[in-house]
Amino acid sequence: MKETKVYLLDFGTLTLDGFQMFWNLGPSGTIRFPVYGALIDHADGLYLFDTGFDKTTFDNMSPGRTGQTERQTVPGQLDLLGLKPTDINYVINSHYHLDHCGGNKHCTCAKTICHKHELEAALDPEPFEVRGYTDKSWLPEAFNPPVPAEVGAPHYDDAGDDIFTASFELLRGDQEIAKGVHLIETPGHTPGHYSLLVELAGRRPMLFSGDACYAKRSLDYMAISSSHVNPRQAYDSLGRLRDLALARDAEIFYSHDPEAFQNFKLAPIPYL
Amino acid sequence: MKETKVYLLDFGTLTLDGFQMFWNLGPSGTIRFPVYGALIDHADGLYLFDTGFDKTTFDNMSPGRTGQTERQTVPGQLDLLGLKPTDINYVINSHYHLDHCGGNKHCTCAKTICHKHELEAALDPEPFEVRGYTDKSWLPEAFNPPVPAEVGAPHYDDAGDDIFTASFELLRGDQEIAKGVHLIETPGHTPGHYSLLVELAGRRPMLFSGDACYAKRSLDYMAISSSHVNPRQAYDSLGRLRDLALARDAEIFYSHDPEAFQNFKLAPIPYL
Repeated sequence: MKETKVYLLDFGTLTLDGFQMFWNLGPSGTIRFPVYGALIDHADGLYLFDTGFDKTTFDNMSPGRTGQTERQTVPGQLDLLGLKPTDINYVINSHYHLDHCGGNKHCTCAKTICHKHELEAALDPEPFEVRGYTDKSWLPEAFNPPVPAEVGAPHYDDAGDDIFTASFELLRGDQEIAKGVHLIETPGHTPGHYSLLVELAGRRPMLFSGDACYAKRSLDYMAISSSHVNPRQAYDSLGRLRDLALARDAEIFYSHDPEAFQNFKLAPIPYL
Repeated sequence: MKETKVYLLDFGTLTLDGFQMFWNLGPSGTIRFPVYGALIDHADGLYLFDTGFDKTTFDNMSPGRTGQTERQTVPGQLDLLGLKPTDINYVINSHYHLDHCGGNKHCTCAKTICHKHELEAALDPEPFEVRGYTDKSWLPEAFNPPVPAEVGAPHYDDAGDDIFTASFELLRGDQEIAKGVHLIETPGHTPGHYSLLVELAGRRPMLFSGDACYAKRSLDYMAISSSHVNPRQAYDSLGRLRDLALARDAEIFYSHDPEAFQNFKLAPIPYL
């Protein structure tokens, strides 16, 4: 059987204040950090975990914070591997904040996989989460543009989970979506946040924390991000990632760590 | 009947970063802000709402942030009114963070009033709340020093709410604790946070927000504090204070607003 490979796709950089990166810990000061995705080349297909931000959408939401070349987009990064966005079979989003789903729209042939609670949260966000969920371009056509406010969020539960057509798959709980590809529930940052663990033949498992753990320093200080809907859950998820990494001897790939990113191998170099 | 008077007691200053004062809004930078309490001289007795911080305890927890003279303590402030801490009949705490309960220990003849959930939270805090609840000097003798960790938090529910002796009164829900003195449930910053509304004969009601609303800017931007256990509750409490102030034509006294504090009348000048 074909052996799984993972490629890290560089989607550019953003900025936050230190007190936003590390809740109530800081120190203050602007931090520029990486945004990236992981392409899993698996016997069952091509899985893309997180798709970065759309520069125009982000700049409109909050000017002056993006760093992104044409190369640092889903089409630009896939091109390094001789691939096109339409080659992607599955798009998985750790969550639907706009710096993790901005490139979904390019993958028009992919099935989209997300946590059921994340879709709910993105369609009907907490008032303090509206800006984080600015980008709705990942929604299927029927909901893009979103339904008018007076109609409210669609009650897709009434019609089963497949109202979004076969292009959407909603999950709950930990799930092995392909052999050796595990979604790990890590809520708190958002209600339906997933981390991802990928087993490889020739190295330690790769544990993509998503925003359940921004940086090594988050674990060192057990400091969650200031962006959260439920701090207790976020704290528990941070502990869960730490314990899982120990139990599985997995290497954690933090979502937004400027220092750790310096040592990542980026596409077209594979992890395998 | 004797008319109620309110005195504002100056308990000194502390500092926070702008991103801690205004969650995910900022801007960054150190803000020095006031800490104060309210003495309610009522026909039923002397009620003290919040008692500031103990300088030594705070400095030990987080050095370099306190500004406090001897005069800016419970004994020092009451002395301006010819009173002693033992004259206080009731101490009410908005919550048990160490900058709101540091002077309780001086009021040895007072009954202590707090929300049931706040006592629970202070005795068994969330891991990210341990520092905020550093000061336990307000606990009655039986629990001071606190029970050993292996015993866990006391299960006072089993013995009824008066296990703390007659010196403690635990409340839930909105409560009019004396005629015209209303405790308003405003959870989110902490689990059992109370704001206080006081009716006076000669002016608009005074609404002491406590840390449910640090500053006027918090309301202007609907920005809760970065210190919270439940952001959705905190957001709802902020809305509740805004609506209550409108409905009752009350003046909001923000807990930590450097600008608003400049216009406060401080003891010995009364509000009446």
